[in-house]
Amino acid sequence: MVAPLPRTLADFARAASETVPAGPHGYYAGGAGDEITLADNVAAWRRIGLRQRVLTDVAQRDLSVPVLGRRWPLPIGIAPMAFQVCIHPGGEAELARAAAALGVTYCLSTLATCSLAELAAQAPDGNRWFQLYVFRDRDVSRAMVAAAEAEGYAAIVVTADLPVMGRRDRDLRSGFALPAIATVPSAAAAGATGDLTPAQFAELIDPSLTWDDLARFVTETPLPVIVKGILDPADARRAVQCGVAGIIVSNHGGRQLDTVAATAAVLREVVDAVGEAGGRAGARRVAVLVDGGIRRGGDVVKALALGADATLVGRPAAWGLAVGGAAGVTRVVELLRAELDVALALVGVPRAVDLDDSVLADLR
Amino acid sequence: MVAPLPRTLADFARAASETVPAGPHGYYAGGAGDEITLADNVAAWRRIGLRQRVLTDVAQRDLSVPVLGRRWPLPIGIAPMAFQVCIHPGGEAELARAAAALGVTYCLSTLATCSLAELAAQAPDGNRWFQLYVFRDRDVSRAMVAAAEAEGYAAIVVTADLPVMGRRDRDLRSGFALPAIATVPSAAAAGATGDLTPAQFAELIDPSLTWDDLARFVTETPLPVIVKGILDPADARRAVQCGVAGIIVSNHGGRQLDTVAATAAVLREVVDAVGEAGGRAGARRVAVLVDGGIRRGGDVVKALALGADATLVGRPAAWGLAVGGAAGVTRVVELLRAELDVALALVGVPRAVDLDDSVLADLR
Amino acid sequence: MVAPLPRTLADFARAASETVPAGPHGYYAGGAGDEITLADNVAAWRRIGLRQRVLTDVAQRDLSVPVLGRRWPLPIGIAPMAFQVCIHPGGEAELARAAAALGVTYCLSTLATCSLAELAAQAPDGNRWFQLYVFRDRDVSRAMVAAAEAEGYAAIVVTADLPVMGRRDRDLRSGFALPAIATVPSAAAAGATGDLTPAQFAELIDPSLTWDDLARFVTETPLPVIVKGILDPADARRAVQCGVAGIIVSNHGGRQLDTVAATAAVLREVVDAVGEAGGRAGARRVAVLVDGGIRRGGDVVKALALGADATLVGRPAAWGLAVGGAAGVTRVVELLRAELDVALALVGVPRAVDLDDSVLADLR
Amino acid sequence: MVAPLPRTLADFARAASETVPAGPHGYYAGGAGDEITLADNVAAWRRIGLRQRVLTDVAQRDLSVPVLGRRWPLPIGIAPMAFQVCIHPGGEAELARAAAALGVTYCLSTLATCSLAELAAQAPDGNRWFQLYVFRDRDVSRAMVAAAEAEGYAAIVVTADLPVMGRRDRDLRSGFALPAIATVPSAAAAGATGDLTPAQFAELIDPSLTWDDLARFVTETPLPVIVKGILDPADARRAVQCGVAGIIVSNHGGRQLDTVAATAAVLREVVDAVGEAGGRAGARRVAVLVDGGIRRGGDVVKALALGADATLVGRPAAWGLAVGGAAGVTRVVELLRAELDVALALVGVPRAVDLDDSVLADLR
Repeated sequence: MVAPLPRTLADFARAASETVPAGPHGYYAGGAGDEITLADNVAAWRRIGLRQRVLTDVAQRDLSVPVLGRRWPLPIGIAPMAFQVCIHPGGEAELARAAAALGVTYCLSTLATCSLAELAAQAPDGNRWFQLYVFRDRDVSRAMVAAAEAEGYAAIVVTADLPVMGRRDRDLRSGFALPAIATVPSAAAAGATGDLTPAQFAELIDPSLTWDDLARFVTETPLPVIVKGILDPADARRAVQCGVAGIIVSNHGGRQLDTVAATAAVLREVVDAVGEAGGRAGARRVAVLVDGGIRRGGDVVKALALGADATLVGRPAAWGLAVGGAAGVTRVVELLRAELDVALALVGVPRAVDLDDSVLADLR
Repeated sequence: MVAPLPRTLADFARAASETVPAGPHGYYAGGAGDEITLADNVAAWRRIGLRQRVLTDVAQRDLSVPVLGRRWPLPIGIAPMAFQVCIHPGGEAELARAAAALGVTYCLSTLATCSLAELAAQAPDGNRWFQLYVFRDRDVSRAMVAAAEAEGYAAIVVTADLPVMGRRDRDLRSGFALPAIATVPSAAAAGATGDLTPAQFAELIDPSLTWDDLARFVTETPLPVIVKGILDPADARRAVQCGVAGIIVSNHGGRQLDTVAATAAVLREVVDAVGEAGGRAGARRVAVLVDGGIRRGGDVVKALALGADATLVGRPAAWGLAVGGAAGVTRVVELLRAELDVALALVGVPRAVDLDDSVLADLR
Repeated sequence: MVAPLPRTLADFARAASETVPAGPHGYYAGGAGDEITLADNVAAWRRIGLRQRVLTDVAQRDLSVPVLGRRWPLPIGIAPMAFQVCIHPGGEAELARAAAALGVTYCLSTLATCSLAELAAQAPDGNRWFQLYVFRDRDVSRAMVAAAEAEGYAAIVVTADLPVMGRRDRDLRSGFALPAIATVPSAAAAGATGDLTPAQFAELIDPSLTWDDLARFVTETPLPVIVKGILDPADARRAVQCGVAGIIVSNHGGRQLDTVAATAAVLREVVDAVGEAGGRAGARRVAVLVDGGIRRGGDVVKALALGADATLVGRPAAWGLAVGGAAGVTRVVELLRAELDVALALVGVPRAVDLDDSVLADLR
Repeated sequence: MVAPLPRTLADFARAASETVPAGPHGYYAGGAGDEITLADNVAAWRRIGLRQRVLTDVAQRDLSVPVLGRRWPLPIGIAPMAFQVCIHPGGEAELARAAAALGVTYCLSTLATCSLAELAAQAPDGNRWFQLYVFRDRDVSRAMVAAAEAEGYAAIVVTADLPVMGRRDRDLRSGFALPAIATVPSAAAAGATGDLTPAQFAELIDPSLTWDDLARFVTETPLPVIVKGILDPADARRAVQCGVAGIIVSNHGGRQLDTVAATAAVLREVVDAVGEAGGRAGARRVAVLVDGGIRRGGDVVKALALGADATLVGRPAAWGLAVGGAAGVTRVVELLRAELDVALALVGVPRAVDLDDSVLADLR
């Protein structure tokens, strides 16, 4: 007999904490330092107030949004996360299959426990992105990008905020290390073997990467390049100048530098900076996505009202995967979708693309 | 032997949580999402400071206020609440009888577990209002309004903030459904049968209702029309233009859209908007009432000082009903009345109608 | 064997909660409503920051201050409190004897459990004040004032903030009533007999008292008149115009109207208002005292820095009395004195009379 | 078998609370009064936000900073603390040896449980400072300074914020006294014998010390003089005028005057005041150090960004000593160093000396 799936995201989180072993759970759930940014990521969305408007006809709602020339059925994608086999035996493929069935974009991590080709085979029709950590061994990185191009990935997401690994006390305490048996193809290609801690995997990453490298990379791949880990308006402007197709406002889920701002708190100024910087790469408008702390459909409304094109969720999808595999992921997305649908009705803006800051208010 | 009635509202709430079964208790006590607005409704009144003034003659206090041409003995009425039979076998009639005996206005819900006629028969002399959810099946709504007119209801309260049902985690978790045996006449008339969840009842409601519908409705019924669920000044102005007799500043008890403002926080600007918009319907001044989070007589002083004509209480009356039937309701109202009486003496304004914002101060 | 006395005020409070029966403990410890003002009285002093200044010669400290023409050895007196026999068999006399031995002013309550004459006999050399509730039965009040004049009380403290009794949930819950056996001479003189609740005692007080009554009273007694329960600058000005010798900024220990400001929060503006209003009665400068939430010597520094001439403490003295009789009171005062002495050294102002707002800073 | 060392500073603190007896633990861990400043010292660093900047080359980090003409390998020294033998049998020597091995400056307390000469013998190559309490018995103080000069101490740190002992409730409760057997050479030289409480040791200190004494002292010793316990800009300016070589912004770990500002909160204005006052003593620029509440490498980044030259840590080093002796101290410093290293990479400023306030942001 199978336990029924949780009915709220909070219950998924609780169930996951009981299901996932302490080591990987700490890796997924924890943050850097005192976890101030980790907590603030969630709290910052909650501090933003919504405005209720009534008696407009909201019988027909439309949750879809355009992202990089594609129509997303709802403004939510799956953020890249490493080592997914640690929380469910089906790993990345299980999550990606669920996402594909929902029409939801899935972003595969460089530190995935399956290869780009394996995932493509498992979710051939899904909209797949590939998250790239640029390794010290550039040959490995080049091979990954080539595979992404060959296997039909729709975008490359370059992570900018992990030149070195953040200090995460939960991992230090648990001593979590990925068993050598759980292959990470990218790391294996770079020669890393044995049981490895997250910090040891991070040693593969090149801390000397610069904006110039990013600008060159944009010209080298036919795929749209999205830069992930932007919190500062100046960095956003610089990214636009590098010709990226998109920016992900992110603090790596509060796992890199504690006491940096919550993503909700800086989203608006990053959006403005992108606008000022031209915000266009070739014929494309630069997309702005945001992740970090999104736990409610109302948070998605707030993100779009602040100017984001869409959002990414990480931990909620992970808890869905951990607790119920593909069915759990589906339930998590459906919960967010239902909340988003209701929130659009209650702010009186039935189409997600029509959201703007008129639906926002300071909570106090 | 009967347990003695609680002596404070907080004790009523506690006792109700022990008396009412988990399903209906969650339905009554809970709110939408993370229950931020639910909690803030209460906290916002507490954050508003009162000014103590001394050595004015306060021997004679007068708590009465005029509302829609009628003198209320105290500025407190009973807010509409669905399914009252779930918390006490006497249901709506029991609560309405207690209210009538106190001279307190009772507002019957569309989703009541007795009909408009049954309630009128039980509380013939009470000042009764009828809360209207406009159904997709307009014939049912028309019949309810006709019954209200025929049975001596004094006003129609059109709820504007439930085009769709808010996402309430407690109900999702408990799976609360009203047993088919507890008849909801309005729903039965609309053909809804079987054990129904609150969300299923909400499916009966028309999400396409607009301001034009409201304006038309005002002209079609001889009864004064009050619109409930206004939080935004722009919506308040629009309501005045539609010719309503009154507005209830409400966020549905924090049960619809989480992170909307507490009613206490927006009351003043709504009152100002009503004033700017003319605030008159025919010969009547548009009344502004407020509900949400009122737990103390001092909260009522603050509401009137901010410009409300009167307040409505929901959960406190429900806890009174659940814990002690009519006697419990009476005790709850008496507690609020006693606190209000003392508060008027201590702010040095012995007549409720004389309250203005000179009695208010920021708490910090 | 006797338990050793506590070594901190917090420990006195804890010990008192274990020593005093629930009914009277709730009466002494509790506040009105949700006890927001009760808690804020303490918190408001804590929120005020002190400035540390170093390397001034602070070898000699002088804690004394002038109050109404008399030198207090430290700027702390004992606030009036009713029914002291409920917390220690020695009652008012025990507390007054300890105060007298310390040179500390003691203020006897109208609702004392001993008469003015009895207390005078027990503490003949102490600086005694008498707190007056003006009764509906003015003959009783006149007799009390006459006794104060005859028995060597140095001032009359007219309480202005209890025209009616605040709503105190702890008393409502406990049903606390003073046993008839514990005589309250003033109430007996007014004909009140039997076990009486605080609210029933309060019924003796005249809610129609006005500023005119106060002004007349000032002219009728040779004693200096101090008005207690002032929070509003306008009331302070009015009091000065009535010719009072002093004002006590007080919210009755948070026991009358919940959500009024903490005394620390309004002290400065009341001091300013007294200054603007002339602040002189005959040849005397109008003294400003403050009570409410003072738990540390540093709080006393802050009160004087904000312009108070001295402070009164209530509950700390009560806990001292309850836990250790006169010795407990002495220990409590000594703890405050020691903290005050150290605080003067560390703000670099060794004489209490030299304190001004240069020692204050916002804590954040 | 030896327990493994903790892996985070929070775990060191917890382990210390289990290892160190209650009396000395309270002395080390506790603060004055309600411990508001104690808590705020930590909280104030956390409230300051960091700005993440990406894609600069941060492969090479340099944590070293110049302090008083010497290169510190990282901007962290060990603050003076009394009675170290109470928390580890190796006492001051154990801590100083660990510091010396790390190249970290160690500041010996006047109230050390070993003499200046003994410590010098134990850590001959370490950069040693001596913290001076000026005793009423100036001969003892002069002898200590002479010993510091003779034994190769690099600076004299004059503590200015302890003219009298702060009131620390934990010590009052525990009755903590240093057993006579644990010799404090300075106190013995001043004739203090027997089991002594911290307050009794403090009686040896001269409360009449003034700025003039400090200015004279600067001219009398060839060693650089640093004044410790400065929170106020005016005091900072005065110190500069006295010719000091350095200032330590400190509130004595929250142990002297409760509700004074957290050091993080005043650091910037003190730095500015030093700059305005000339900030030079002879050819040297006046160094500004800060202690209080530093628990993370990110806190050190913030301190330097606010203008400090370096920081001192007290309790973290004490917990390291208590839990693991020299190895524990080493681990504590290594944890802070690792966090600092990562934080420099993530704010995009790989050299500590290049930090400025561009890396700071308000957290909200």
